[in-house]
Amino acid sequence: MSTKSKESTEFSVTTGALPASKKIYVSGEQHKDIRVAMREISLGGGEPSLTVYDPSGIYTDVNAKVDIYKGLPKLRESWILGRGDVEAYVGRDVKPEDNGLKGADRGAAVTEFPNVNKTPLRAKAGKNVSQMHYARAGLITQEMEYIAIRENEGRREAAQAELKAYQKGNNWGKALPQLITPEFVRAEVAAGRAIIPNNINHPESEPMIIGRNFKVKINANIGNSAVTSSVAEEVEKMVWSTRWGADTVMDLSTGRNIHNIREWIIRNSPVPIGTVPIYQALEKVGGVAEELTYEIFRDTLIEQCEQGVDYFTIHAGVRLPFIPMTAERKTGIVSRGGSILAKWCMAHHKENFLFTNYEDICELLKQYDVAFSLGDGLRPGSQYDANDEAQFSELKTLGDLTKIAWEHDVQVMVEGPGHVPMHLIKENMDKQLELCHEAPFYTLGPLTTDIAPGYDHITSGIGAAMIGWFGTAMLCYVTPKEHLGLPDRDDVKVGVVTYKIAAHAADLAKGHPSAHHRDDALSKARFDFRWQDQFNLALDPETAKDFHDETLPADGAKVAHFCSMCGPKFCSMKISQDVRDFAAAEKEKGMQEMAEKFKEGGSEIYVKQSA
Amino acid sequence: MSTKSKESTEFSVTTGALPASKKIYVSGEQHKDIRVAMREISLGGGEPSLTVYDPSGIYTDVNAKVDIYKGLPKLRESWILGRGDVEAYVGRDVKPEDNGLKGADRGAAVTEFPNVNKTPLRAKAGKNVSQMHYARAGLITQEMEYIAIRENEGRREAAQAELKAYQKGNNWGKALPQLITPEFVRAEVAAGRAIIPNNINHPESEPMIIGRNFKVKINANIGNSAVTSSVAEEVEKMVWSTRWGADTVMDLSTGRNIHNIREWIIRNSPVPIGTVPIYQALEKVGGVAEELTYEIFRDTLIEQCEQGVDYFTIHAGVRLPFIPMTAERKTGIVSRGGSILAKWCMAHHKENFLFTNYEDICELLKQYDVAFSLGDGLRPGSQYDANDEAQFSELKTLGDLTKIAWEHDVQVMVEGPGHVPMHLIKENMDKQLELCHEAPFYTLGPLTTDIAPGYDHITSGIGAAMIGWFGTAMLCYVTPKEHLGLPDRDDVKVGVVTYKIAAHAADLAKGHPSAHHRDDALSKARFDFRWQDQFNLALDPETAKDFHDETLPADGAKVAHFCSMCGPKFCSMKISQDVRDFAAAEKEKGMQEMAEKFKEGGSEIYVKQSA
Repeated sequence: MSTKSKESTEFSVTTGALPASKKIYVSGEQHKDIRVAMREISLGGGEPSLTVYDPSGIYTDVNAKVDIYKGLPKLRESWILGRGDVEAYVGRDVKPEDNGLKGADRGAAVTEFPNVNKTPLRAKAGKNVSQMHYARAGLITQEMEYIAIRENEGRREAAQAELKAYQKGNNWGKALPQLITPEFVRAEVAAGRAIIPNNINHPESEPMIIGRNFKVKINANIGNSAVTSSVAEEVEKMVWSTRWGADTVMDLSTGRNIHNIREWIIRNSPVPIGTVPIYQALEKVGGVAEELTYEIFRDTLIEQCEQGVDYFTIHAGVRLPFIPMTAERKTGIVSRGGSILAKWCMAHHKENFLFTNYEDICELLKQYDVAFSLGDGLRPGSQYDANDEAQFSELKTLGDLTKIAWEHDVQVMVEGPGHVPMHLIKENMDKQLELCHEAPFYTLGPLTTDIAPGYDHITSGIGAAMIGWFGTAMLCYVTPKEHLGLPDRDDVKVGVVTYKIAAHAADLAKGHPSAHHRDDALSKARFDFRWQDQFNLALDPETAKDFHDETLPADGAKVAHFCSMCGPKFCSMKISQDVRDFAAAEKEKGMQEMAEKFKEGGSEIYVKQSA
Repeated sequence: MSTKSKESTEFSVTTGALPASKKIYVSGEQHKDIRVAMREISLGGGEPSLTVYDPSGIYTDVNAKVDIYKGLPKLRESWILGRGDVEAYVGRDVKPEDNGLKGADRGAAVTEFPNVNKTPLRAKAGKNVSQMHYARAGLITQEMEYIAIRENEGRREAAQAELKAYQKGNNWGKALPQLITPEFVRAEVAAGRAIIPNNINHPESEPMIIGRNFKVKINANIGNSAVTSSVAEEVEKMVWSTRWGADTVMDLSTGRNIHNIREWIIRNSPVPIGTVPIYQALEKVGGVAEELTYEIFRDTLIEQCEQGVDYFTIHAGVRLPFIPMTAERKTGIVSRGGSILAKWCMAHHKENFLFTNYEDICELLKQYDVAFSLGDGLRPGSQYDANDEAQFSELKTLGDLTKIAWEHDVQVMVEGPGHVPMHLIKENMDKQLELCHEAPFYTLGPLTTDIAPGYDHITSGIGAAMIGWFGTAMLCYVTPKEHLGLPDRDDVKVGVVTYKIAAHAADLAKGHPSAHHRDDALSKARFDFRWQDQFNLALDPETAKDFHDETLPADGAKVAHFCSMCGPKFCSMKISQDVRDFAAAEKEKGMQEMAEKFKEGGSEIYVKQSA
């Protein structure tokens, strides 16, 4: 049962284990101080428990003490300090404009996080603290081993079993390893095929990896806007979204108190936090895109590096010459960041300042290990605009920028899709792999039709599952409110569960060796009429149970060997035991016939060939 | 606004137009008495109205008189009688066991439909009244022309316009015709690539076609069960599901009053009705599968032929030798019909009586023009069981049975999928095309993972969109209640809208020439901030509007040039006009530069080559 944390009278978050689940911790071998968090689901009927990947942090650990006013324990602090390449320093002062509160009419600040660290860490002079840098130096960090254990769940078993076609999947000619080792994680990060987004100033986060040879991840967007929502809501949305499976969370706040809300979120987040820094920079210049400067933007980056943001969406690919390519589109430039930059470029008739200052940004990011999420400012906003010249010109530029970042050992993923019909989805993945040198792809949807506002979690869930199968490493969720409003708590849950479905369907289709265990366990529970196990193994146990109970609320119905579809009299599942008996008898009969023939033939094992 | 029909004090159905929509009727050319119903959506901003395919019947026509106690007008009666090959006869008497009411403890009958026709039609001796028979004789029926007009919507325009890649689609090497003609419909039906399910005793239905060279269709399942639901609910579910776009409805009732409920449904249904006759036959033998006989089954077929059922799911492919192939499955036989037949076969150790009496069934069906929906009794019920020997052995048999039906000019579609991971979906379609000689495929989902009960409309919507693109002609919906309970009215709506998304995404990806118009119109409305048009063009206008109003309820917000995501200050969509001006200026400047160079060069059009 989920309950609200009692630590605070002002605001609280959802805590408590999911049904029949407990948090377990698996120790490292190479690094003995690692304790990898996982969720173990207990089953009935003598079935072994099932362990699943779990990004929800200590909020679902009934033994943990949650205090959102203190923030999470600093899991990675000793690992970071232990490498001896960072220094604490007096950080940048928080200014009123960081919260959009400059000027008389800008309203009041929300409560500041009470436990702000005024001395953030950065790399010592000449050092580079990125996981890519370590990986390329041959170092297997604690983060890498943590990830290997986390991704490995179920694989030892899978590595031994003989696999059916459905379990093998189709990974487009590239086999996934049967066992993830820390060395495999290192090699993938070194090659740029995967990233570990974890700012040294966000030591609270549990390491995770984004790359196409790992489980497909999902991101949930939260954040206030100028129109609506508060700090309490946003912190709860972060906790809530990881409860249902979000692997990273992007704080897309655009209203007031951006700085303070972000501090609350990061200090309490067990998953990496991403942002789009241009949103805050724009607030600092009163919303007037033309007044943006690289200096204001850079100062915003430092502000967010010090707070602990793990990846930045940077729209450095919205180049001046590409802007006219969008003029004949049906829906122009729909990316907010893309349009801010386009407006700036047009006003000054100059190249995008993120593009011209790109190497300086690389220099900054490697001091904190912030990853690039190279923004797709020109993504299509309608089926009509899919896969056009503007989109692919930008993608080519993002590939060029990837190479530059890699020269600095800065981690990179590349953003993509938007609205794309099914038959044009694979081209996106193929081009991205080619143009961006296999850097991880991170896509919004894509939405496979434009005609269903109110259901865009579904229009996009279709595209997300497909592009995930094709190789996208992380899927950015879309909620039912897309195009219509800001998602509330319920919308966040529906969005996350829909994207967990898409990511898991992709893992199955790719043949991720641990993916099928949960399907098999749930199907067996279904076949055995273990209703409670079906609910507990479901992505959303509460909804599954509520739906069942609507038709058959009696407690007895949950142990009944029937369901409301066929009723108690006749049940197709019940017949299968008869089938097994029948098959056994047929086989027996077959054996019998064979035996009789054998006897007729003179009881010789090998019938003599007539010469 | 939707209102409840006033004609009845006992029960009523939802009537009224969808927002900004009206019913229009388009006349035939070859058959002047045809009036094809369509929905016209009015738009603002000087945009032309958009006409869309509309299976909802007169319930959405504000000028029509709805009386569910009388049933719908008999649209096709004169066409059927006009062909001169049918005769009315005194039909079979309704028996108590038809309603499962034999014996003292079986409860009371529901109200009988007051307007039962006691003299159904059948083919005159030696005649065959199937559309396939007419098609092969070269006859273009009213039904065929109706369908050509219905499917053609938007195509004349599309046939002239130059198409973008996204509009062309990818139809796996087979181009769709740019214009559907009545002759094309005839040829497709004659070839068996498409069916027109319309029993001569269901003259109320509006003709529609199921085939992969037409729009992808969707089916909604309704029906009571032994556990729950009533006649009023089921009739409303039928009307409700067509309101949101169901192209056919299957009545899967398994409880009492099956006969009477079906009569109410058929008499009021503007779409073809399908059933699984074995369900009713089983009720007639008190739920004991072993006691089924072909005689009881055949009598049930006649009962339903006379009532007007348009297609029958017949599990003739569940052959005795295939049953042991399911013994090692994770979830055995999950099809209810399949397991009934399996049980019968095992009990008698005999071949399936539907298989052995198949030609007799063909003889019957051609007298009423009932189409076969050859049932997939061995479909997989879990990822683990996908594409196995049992499933494909049955599919091969269904292909053989298709050929036999075609020898009788009986229309056939073939049922498929269930639970199939993404990478195994296409094999299903490819095999079906090959083994079943291009007869239309009709699939349930498939569900692309087993781990999300409560969200199986989504797990299956993913698979449905894909298999629809690959060539499936009709998608059987799955509601959020799948595996958990019987769908209520809300679940039916969510299921239908989800499957309309899947079918439309498939039409776009195949390049159905009229598919993209609605996407383009909605995207343009979105770009122009015509909020009301966005809602009205949506598959579910009510939900879209409600979601928008949750965040921005003021009436002014519906004409505002911003939305709740970015707020009034900054809006990415607003920037695009700047981009167009900029692009125009750049082009102008480019022209200017060219002009200046031209002047510098001495105003000669061709610069002389230096010799």
